[in-house]
Amino acid sequence: MSDAPRLRILVVGASGVLGRAVVAELGARHEIVSAGSKSGDIRIDIADPESIAAGLRAAGPLDAVACAAGAVNFAPLGDIAPAALAQSAYGLGLVNKLMGQVNLTLAARDVLRDGGSITLISGVLADEPIVAGSSASMVNGALESFVRAAAIELPRGLRVNVVSPTVFEESMDGYGPFFRGFDPVPVLRAARAFSRSVEGRQTGQVYQVL
Amino acid sequence: MSDAPRLRILVVGASGVLGRAVVAELGARHEIVSAGSKSGDIRIDIADPESIAAGLRAAGPLDAVACAAGAVNFAPLGDIAPAALAQSAYGLGLVNKLMGQVNLTLAARDVLRDGGSITLISGVLADEPIVAGSSASMVNGALESFVRAAAIELPRGLRVNVVSPTVFEESMDGYGPFFRGFDPVPVLRAARAFSRSVEGRQTGQVYQVL
Repeated sequence: MSDAPRLRILVVGASGVLGRAVVAELGARHEIVSAGSKSGDIRIDIADPESIAAGLRAAGPLDAVACAAGAVNFAPLGDIAPAALAQSAYGLGLVNKLMGQVNLTLAARDVLRDGGSITLISGVLADEPIVAGSSASMVNGALESFVRAAAIELPRGLRVNVVSPTVFEESMDGYGPFFRGFDPVPVLRAARAFSRSVEGRQTGQVYQVL
Repeated sequence: MSDAPRLRILVVGASGVLGRAVVAELGARHEIVSAGSKSGDIRIDIADPESIAAGLRAAGPLDAVACAAGAVNFAPLGDIAPAALAQSAYGLGLVNKLMGQVNLTLAARDVLRDGGSITLISGVLADEPIVAGSSASMVNGALESFVRAAAIELPRGLRVNVVSPTVFEESMDGYGPFFRGFDPVPVLRAARAFSRSVEGRQTGQVYQVL
């Protein structure tokens, strides 16, 4: 087989546990533009559509956008009261991890080179609930269905997939108490799923890493 | 077997195609309190948490809440621009069908009799995309994951399920052009799924009606 092309890839959330693994995996073969809300080659706050637009302008030509960023609240259901979205405990996840990644997808659609890809991050809670995880479950389920839907309407051969990992071995210090009994995976396996999305040809896929 | 108890059931969105079928199915054996934004025994606008609270106070003691209401936008992905949630084409679905039903669940949690049930409505687009359906897909996926998560944290034996139907035969005049090639189902089959949720004992279920 001939060598695969060297791609120019924007990694959003590049400084986190997952982002660093994605940069290491894809950076071995491709050019990485790192982005984050507080660090990186460029600054992108996914909760702010203007920040996404400015970040994509600054990034220049791209073959792929990979997102490893997205915040949600963890709160026991019993502590969550009915509230309008802006005041709701569910608001952060809907504005940040969900609409942040949806807006990143829509903005990337308008700037990626033909045939480029967008890869988002959801998580196992879409399918397997934990106590205090109803916001994460909601947002992850929304992202997985959104990706299946957006994939059939993207123009110019653009693709969109989502990586849905279980808890990472590297994150067990913080998340372990929420995920008792779950088999943690090395974050490298999730980074490989990003590689499969970026360097493969599928679209509308949910790559589960369990 | 002894006779099952007669339940007092609030049906939200009682005047629509689905709501009328749910009222007919469950009303044959139980007491129905009908609610809608413009008609019914009581008025509830699910997009407004205050309206939900006032409606539940007016409804009195309840064994079940069944929701057949929820609005989303249908728009081609190419017509959707990145935008903050409040200005986004995705805002209506997130505020109305998603958070409306989430807030209805949280409010019902605080007033239902022990062992009572909440039944929500999602739809086939969570799994099977159509053109112009990315908002509906997102919202339906969010609801199905939310229900799985909320079910494990509800107190007092309360249950929550969601009915996820394909397009109804009775709705093909309006929705047919969006759902070419889908096998429509009689709305009665979706009403039976509501019965299964209300009159059964499962929780955290997605009752697909395909």
